[in-house]
Amino acid sequence: MRTIRKTTKSQRTPTTEIRGLILDASKRIIEEDGYDAFTIRLLSEKADVSPASIYRHIGDKQAVINALIDDSFQTLREKLLRVTTEDPLQRLYDAGVVYRGHAKASPGIYALLWRWHAGEASEACLAAMTELVRYGQAAGKIRRDDPHLIAWSIWSAVHGFVQFETRPEHDTPVDDDDAAYSFLLRLLIRGVRAPETVSEGTATIADTSRS
Amino acid sequence: MRTIRKTTKSQRTPTTEIRGLILDASKRIIEEDGYDAFTIRLLSEKADVSPASIYRHIGDKQAVINALIDDSFQTLREKLLRVTTEDPLQRLYDAGVVYRGHAKASPGIYALLWRWHAGEASEACLAAMTELVRYGQAAGKIRRDDPHLIAWSIWSAVHGFVQFETRPEHDTPVDDDDAAYSFLLRLLIRGVRAPETVSEGTATIADTSRS
Repeated sequence: MRTIRKTTKSQRTPTTEIRGLILDASKRIIEEDGYDAFTIRLLSEKADVSPASIYRHIGDKQAVINALIDDSFQTLREKLLRVTTEDPLQRLYDAGVVYRGHAKASPGIYALLWRWHAGEASEACLAAMTELVRYGQAAGKIRRDDPHLIAWSIWSAVHGFVQFETRPEHDTPVDDDDAAYSFLLRLLIRGVRAPETVSEGTATIADTSRS
Repeated sequence: MRTIRKTTKSQRTPTTEIRGLILDASKRIIEEDGYDAFTIRLLSEKADVSPASIYRHIGDKQAVINALIDDSFQTLREKLLRVTTEDPLQRLYDAGVVYRGHAKASPGIYALLWRWHAGEASEACLAAMTELVRYGQAAGKIRRDDPHLIAWSIWSAVHGFVQFETRPEHDTPVDDDDAAYSFLLRLLIRGVRAPETVSEGTATIADTSRS
């Protein structure tokens, strides 16, 4: 047992730094060894923080995973909020690119994001996406449907693509994933664009607003 | 050991029937007990087929799971091919409804579909979706982009929605999943609709065809 040495270390180290060490090592384990290999014992070794300190600063395995998930959603939210392209449809496109980049940077964490109840951090992330939609609606560029529903549709769609792409056994049936993702984003943007820019007399099921 | 009795049974039962018994019991285990609980021993009990017979007719655990996956993709393909609504955009919508129904009928199997290399059955399924797109293109209702890319975009998008919806810890942030899915399908259909029905002079990134 190395608990005594580690506890001594943790007593000298600020709480936020310990928490950072634990989360950084947790991310490495998830990406390099996989979720199934994740144990507090392995985490203790990789973070050089005692199990007792891990329990004190964050909690048990599930608490550490939950902290990773919250951290990932919060980081994604911050990245989305930094997308400030002026053109609303281009902003939506750029946000889509940011979303995919976030997932591909940590595919192991991405796979965990919805494995359990997605909490407030996930909701805050969706709220950031909804703001992107509202920005386009205020500019008259995005349809005046429920912005929350539009955001959820876009999130679902980009999630599907990214989930296919980041799964361990990657074998998407397209030659160029970058081009395919760009294609999907442009398809989605056409789907949410304000009907003012679409000619009349084309009423099909695709034009019907949600009743 | 019940091997002798079971082997006797399997010798009296046609191969296709044995295979059906094994796959039906496998589905029940995946949906009721979960993938992690799946063992050949449990399967043998639930299917009332000996382990030796399971190995002879299908193979080991992974072979049984692969057979389930292929079976699910083949069934989905057959369901999609039966969608023959005349209006091409409505046909696409109806196929989307069929896709979601297929996933929701067996969420446990659905979660397994992309856990490993998706093989020929998956490609045949995508080919059926691509045919739906080609039908709409032939009628001038769907954009003349690569039908394979359009089909893959739609598949990715509906997969994302359905994957969020069917995960064990269901907590989608919308009040009405049915309405949200209908909203997504209509969004996607607007996104793939032929540009002939869209007015000129609205060139944005969303209008730009893939170069």
